[in-house]
Amino acid sequence: MEKEKYIQNLCREAKEAANQIMGISTEKKNKVLLKIAGALEERKKDLQAENNKDLEKGKESGLNQALLDRLELTDKRIGEMAQCLKEIAALPDPVGEVVNMKTRPNGMKVGRMRVPIGVVGIIYEARPNVTSDAAGLCFKSSNAIILRGGKEALHSNKAIVDIIKDVLVEEDLSAGCVQFIETPDRELVPILLKQNQWIDLIIPRGGKGLIQTVVENSHIPVIKHYDGICHIYVDDQVNFDHARQVTVNSKMQRLSVCNALESLLIHEKAAPQFLPAVARELHHQGVELRGCLQTREILEKENIPCPEATEEDWRTEYLDRILAVKIVPSIEKAVEHINTYGSHHTDSILTDSYWQSKYFIEHVDSACVFVNTSTRLSDGHQFGLGAEIGISTDKLHARGPMGLEDLTTTKYIVLGENHLRE
Amino acid sequence: MEKEKYIQNLCREAKEAANQIMGISTEKKNKVLLKIAGALEERKKDLQAENNKDLEKGKESGLNQALLDRLELTDKRIGEMAQCLKEIAALPDPVGEVVNMKTRPNGMKVGRMRVPIGVVGIIYEARPNVTSDAAGLCFKSSNAIILRGGKEALHSNKAIVDIIKDVLVEEDLSAGCVQFIETPDRELVPILLKQNQWIDLIIPRGGKGLIQTVVENSHIPVIKHYDGICHIYVDDQVNFDHARQVTVNSKMQRLSVCNALESLLIHEKAAPQFLPAVARELHHQGVELRGCLQTREILEKENIPCPEATEEDWRTEYLDRILAVKIVPSIEKAVEHINTYGSHHTDSILTDSYWQSKYFIEHVDSACVFVNTSTRLSDGHQFGLGAEIGISTDKLHARGPMGLEDLTTTKYIVLGENHLRE
Repeated sequence: MEKEKYIQNLCREAKEAANQIMGISTEKKNKVLLKIAGALEERKKDLQAENNKDLEKGKESGLNQALLDRLELTDKRIGEMAQCLKEIAALPDPVGEVVNMKTRPNGMKVGRMRVPIGVVGIIYEARPNVTSDAAGLCFKSSNAIILRGGKEALHSNKAIVDIIKDVLVEEDLSAGCVQFIETPDRELVPILLKQNQWIDLIIPRGGKGLIQTVVENSHIPVIKHYDGICHIYVDDQVNFDHARQVTVNSKMQRLSVCNALESLLIHEKAAPQFLPAVARELHHQGVELRGCLQTREILEKENIPCPEATEEDWRTEYLDRILAVKIVPSIEKAVEHINTYGSHHTDSILTDSYWQSKYFIEHVDSACVFVNTSTRLSDGHQFGLGAEIGISTDKLHARGPMGLEDLTTTKYIVLGENHLRE
Repeated sequence: MEKEKYIQNLCREAKEAANQIMGISTEKKNKVLLKIAGALEERKKDLQAENNKDLEKGKESGLNQALLDRLELTDKRIGEMAQCLKEIAALPDPVGEVVNMKTRPNGMKVGRMRVPIGVVGIIYEARPNVTSDAAGLCFKSSNAIILRGGKEALHSNKAIVDIIKDVLVEEDLSAGCVQFIETPDRELVPILLKQNQWIDLIIPRGGKGLIQTVVENSHIPVIKHYDGICHIYVDDQVNFDHARQVTVNSKMQRLSVCNALESLLIHEKAAPQFLPAVARELHHQGVELRGCLQTREILEKENIPCPEATEEDWRTEYLDRILAVKIVPSIEKAVEHINTYGSHHTDSILTDSYWQSKYFIEHVDSACVFVNTSTRLSDGHQFGLGAEIGISTDKLHARGPMGLEDLTTTKYIVLGENHLRE
């Protein structure tokens, strides 16, 4: 009961704050964002002192080096956090825009006005920069935010939130705009997920386990993505040099991200010439290829090792120097494979054919469908959305990179002249 | 286990059918819709024979007359069902539209293409016309549908679905486009709500209990509305004659619908003159007024009976000849009341003041915010959307009347020139 009360109070404060900031001006919001950016830099030493507590605790509890690295708030990282807030301040404000205002035959005007969603809950793991990025995006779109970070970053997150709250209060805004769950108690999450009276949207960011728990327990709408099993399909009508460059860039430009290439599909007519060339380059860069029977036959002649790809491989997000390769008899089979095994994130066709590109665009059921483009370009900044709050492989409300506009909803507004219903 | 298998098979078939109809032409879809409309009229006698089974069972089990009336498939009702399908055929097809295609600084083109959602599940109560309306809307937007109707209308719904399936098969389309759960077993609903692997969206239509069960058990995104507690706020700067007409129309044009007026708020300066006039007319039409203290004082002088409105009254959707009335000192208090007690459905201000209308539009947190318009005009047809699949008081994906476009999602499409990430 005490836990429920704690969460409910926190949510009610967020809702009240959301009502307060619903109507504040863009100018005011930008001023606050820039002031928070400044405060993060100024109070860097405090931040790092708190961050050290997390780092020491992490070392004690045996957190691996990669996680410790992600956790550390170096000068550079704090600079990047401040920079991100400045970029958010520079983005156009989506709130208040009226879209599609039309006049009905009876003279009544009907349009949709873009308005804040209300209260957004973010449940995330390690990285402390998510705290300031997400708070900044929600504030710019006039939403209140409830943050539930990982316990490994508790002190760091709390320190960041304290700085933000100080600025809010200095600017006569409610500190409730940015709420932070300070207790690492795991039981609080299911309680939070039942507060559909106060919270309008939950965005989980983290591992598959975390996201599944959220989906199964939430009474609040959830926007999420599980993983990024991205494909490239190489058509037989294509410049093989360009196709090789795009394929290598998609796989190698950064390995550990959700828009990196994980499965390569090649048309059987392209395979004899294209596969050896691309395999040689990837093998040279230390990538392990796992292939279907035909792939292995071709690569055997080239003396490039290639174990068999299992059913499991087609469903795996490696985030590593491994690539699954399959030769397909047609674009239809390629699309069928992508829609069956993929994660509906980002898939790209490399082709010179108008008809093949059209078929691919119309039939691949993914958030981002590319033609002749590296999968690594699937990103809010690259799409021109600015900073992103996450990426959605769901179909409702937001699909693909989620920018500021996806943190708003619309309401119908009707301007009448004392219209009645007959 | 057997029940799960039954539901899973049905869902898998729907998903396969959704993949099949993803790319069919508008022309083909319209042809099928018109053919179904024709078949409903031609096979009217079969439909009514099945409908009679439901009616007789309903009488035996003591269903009240209002419910029996709603259930009956008269010639007129069947005609309306066919007409609705013809109207859906005449609506523009939202699928395939590309919105917001922009060229990025690097020359890459990024846009969003409107595509079907996939598989939509509808859980609904009594009225059999929902079966054909919902199936028609989903088919026109290239979605497969899974229908779960009330047990009272089982035979009628099944007969409608059989007619639709016959047409689909005649037209070489998968009968799986329109799936129907034939067993009234209540345990099937929670099983259905866990099939997030196959189903993309659930729309519950019915009483509050049904909707709450769906929200609490679903692993699939849900779009819903609980009830319609609609308000009118009468400003002091307004033509009282017009305000009275709009108020009476909002309350009386049809009592039992979600966009009927339930609470009337009046500015204290308007009350002495406006309240007696509107109260007299409503009282004359048999409406019981329940009021705040000030309201009762004014009406007492007019000899119009007015019991006290309790806290409960402000939260009640009467759907009847009852209206709650409150006098407020300011627009701020009116908006606060609406946002606190309302159901975020439709609320209207009646005013001659630019400033008051602007404040109301910007601060009322409802799906539909009206100025000088009857709440009864909150409706997909009136808004120009054509037939509606439901109305949403949620904030994500769809808010307000849901037309064809709300049955689609978008995917990002990127047209590159072998663009790489640097």
